[in-house]
Amino acid sequence: MTEAVAEKIKPAGKKIGRQSLMMEKKAVLLSTATVAGPKESAGPLARYYDRLCTDNLLNEKSFERAECHMLEEACFLSLGKAGLTPDEIDLFIAGDLLNQIISSSFCARKLALPFFGIYGACSSLVEGLSIGAMLLEGNFAEHILIGTSSHNCSSERQYRYPTEYGYQRPGYSQQTVTGAGAVVLGPSFHEGPRIESITIGKIVDPGIKDPYNMGMAMAPAAADTIYRHFTDLKRDPEYYDLILSGDLGEVGKQLNEDILERKGLKLNNYTDCGVQIYYPHQKVNSGASGCACCALVFLGKIYSQMMQQELRKVLLVATGALHSTTTFQQGESIPGIAHAISLEI
Amino acid sequence: MTEAVAEKIKPAGKKIGRQSLMMEKKAVLLSTATVAGPKESAGPLARYYDRLCTDNLLNEKSFERAECHMLEEACFLSLGKAGLTPDEIDLFIAGDLLNQIISSSFCARKLALPFFGIYGACSSLVEGLSIGAMLLEGNFAEHILIGTSSHNCSSERQYRYPTEYGYQRPGYSQQTVTGAGAVVLGPSFHEGPRIESITIGKIVDPGIKDPYNMGMAMAPAAADTIYRHFTDLKRDPEYYDLILSGDLGEVGKQLNEDILERKGLKLNNYTDCGVQIYYPHQKVNSGASGCACCALVFLGKIYSQMMQQELRKVLLVATGALHSTTTFQQGESIPGIAHAISLEI
Repeated sequence: MTEAVAEKIKPAGKKIGRQSLMMEKKAVLLSTATVAGPKESAGPLARYYDRLCTDNLLNEKSFERAECHMLEEACFLSLGKAGLTPDEIDLFIAGDLLNQIISSSFCARKLALPFFGIYGACSSLVEGLSIGAMLLEGNFAEHILIGTSSHNCSSERQYRYPTEYGYQRPGYSQQTVTGAGAVVLGPSFHEGPRIESITIGKIVDPGIKDPYNMGMAMAPAAADTIYRHFTDLKRDPEYYDLILSGDLGEVGKQLNEDILERKGLKLNNYTDCGVQIYYPHQKVNSGASGCACCALVFLGKIYSQMMQQELRKVLLVATGALHSTTTFQQGESIPGIAHAISLEI
Repeated sequence: MTEAVAEKIKPAGKKIGRQSLMMEKKAVLLSTATVAGPKESAGPLARYYDRLCTDNLLNEKSFERAECHMLEEACFLSLGKAGLTPDEIDLFIAGDLLNQIISSSFCARKLALPFFGIYGACSSLVEGLSIGAMLLEGNFAEHILIGTSSHNCSSERQYRYPTEYGYQRPGYSQQTVTGAGAVVLGPSFHEGPRIESITIGKIVDPGIKDPYNMGMAMAPAAADTIYRHFTDLKRDPEYYDLILSGDLGEVGKQLNEDILERKGLKLNNYTDCGVQIYYPHQKVNSGASGCACCALVFLGKIYSQMMQQELRKVLLVATGALHSTTTFQQGESIPGIAHAISLEI
């Protein structure tokens, strides 16, 4: 390539600071769809979900099949809402909590689309949105479908114990959400919330070794990414109508606020997806977690509020705990990560 | 954004056909590094590896820690060869075979870089290179580090049986490679092999349910992606000095050739990474597999041959089997995927 050609190609994105990127041609969230499990459907956000499931199995033979079923439904629902057929989608990006992200891979088999699997645990939705927004801005795709899912029964038996054991959980534990969410990203001339900036997270490991204590394992990563976002973009928290973390729950949310306050960052307009999914009487200890936690709250409630212009500027920070049962059994601590995107309408 | 601004931003990439993309500002593979296990170090490609390990544990307490250790070494080696410090790397993209891609996540913890985890099983290297090339071309990063690893002992005990059992394996089975590879992608003004095009794969599931039969499970996906690549780009196989599939082994390589020949595509200059890593007397049945298979052959031997201009145009097609032990036990078949990139120097 000659220098002249290099000159002609204008930078599409722009790196700001160490970890953040400002988008120019802002990818639009054309449509979203959410499928919620029975416990989630009995929660306070039920009216924002597209499909309310009455049982955990959806007539499938296993919880894993049921989770995949939910993800497939969310994908097809979001395509329908965007008025697109699978043929019009250039790329499917998905990730989930199960070993070898089987829900995503088997959903990709059904969709028969070019597919990139990702793994960021509960940060997968924002990892997918970040990669998707960059690929759209770089003109590598026109429409990208992004999906994620989690299922309480499949992930509890994989990470901890089968739920049928009825084991006791500590007060700081969280309930893995049963559900799935999907979103279609499209070019900037459409209407809808736009991805304005991205802050890619680094791993922060506070040394927590207890796989029930997800909130504390992930909160330092959330605080790090949020702090980095405001430093890189030279913004104040007041810039946003809402700052929303992924699934820290009560315990992690408090720790995140504490860390940030000690760094001089006071979040007034801040909440966490994990404290929104269930009523207090649903007894979920510290709140909700799982890939679907952030998906149900953001792609359900917040997307709807943005479309109605009740919220105009939102910072979404999804958090993930990147351990496995093997690393836990080998005495390793739990590495946390958080990715952030800012959205505007 | 106004229409005028939209006009000014020139497309950086270009979609060709259904699944392929032509790159304009071609990302350069600035440096590569490979770390090989003991059996691999006794194989015919030993002189191409940067580090030859004499035992499977590298003084670590577990095979999983040893795998992570290898990946860390490959990453730091490739940074050193590129003359870069971690601070100069914008993004680390990595994936491996272990549940929750723990080798990659724990390596990312050590590197302390912005991190995207991916999962494409043995196709991870090319999935990472594809995403990396697009992000570089879109000006979202200047230097991206991509890594992948596999370990025979950690993945055999996860997917099949612990190797200590000394169980018999069928003749069509493959040996998961112990090793790791890393590569630094940089901007186009540098010297080195460039990523010229990308063909993103779709899942093809031939209905194989036997987790020893990776070659047959993945070959139809490889054939599909290779056929799509030549159709999208309107090229003949003779265009390339070498067409290299990831880890199909003897059985899968033959099936891939058969499928493509029936579609009218005869590959003369074709081989598979899986048939190159070991000598026949090393008794690995159908050949090698695992994320590190493609990494050792491509980032070791082929990269070196490209740098010496012995090969100028190469098509690399990495294949992945996206099953888990859970899907196997639940009677599911094995979804295959393959991603391709063409490289030139």
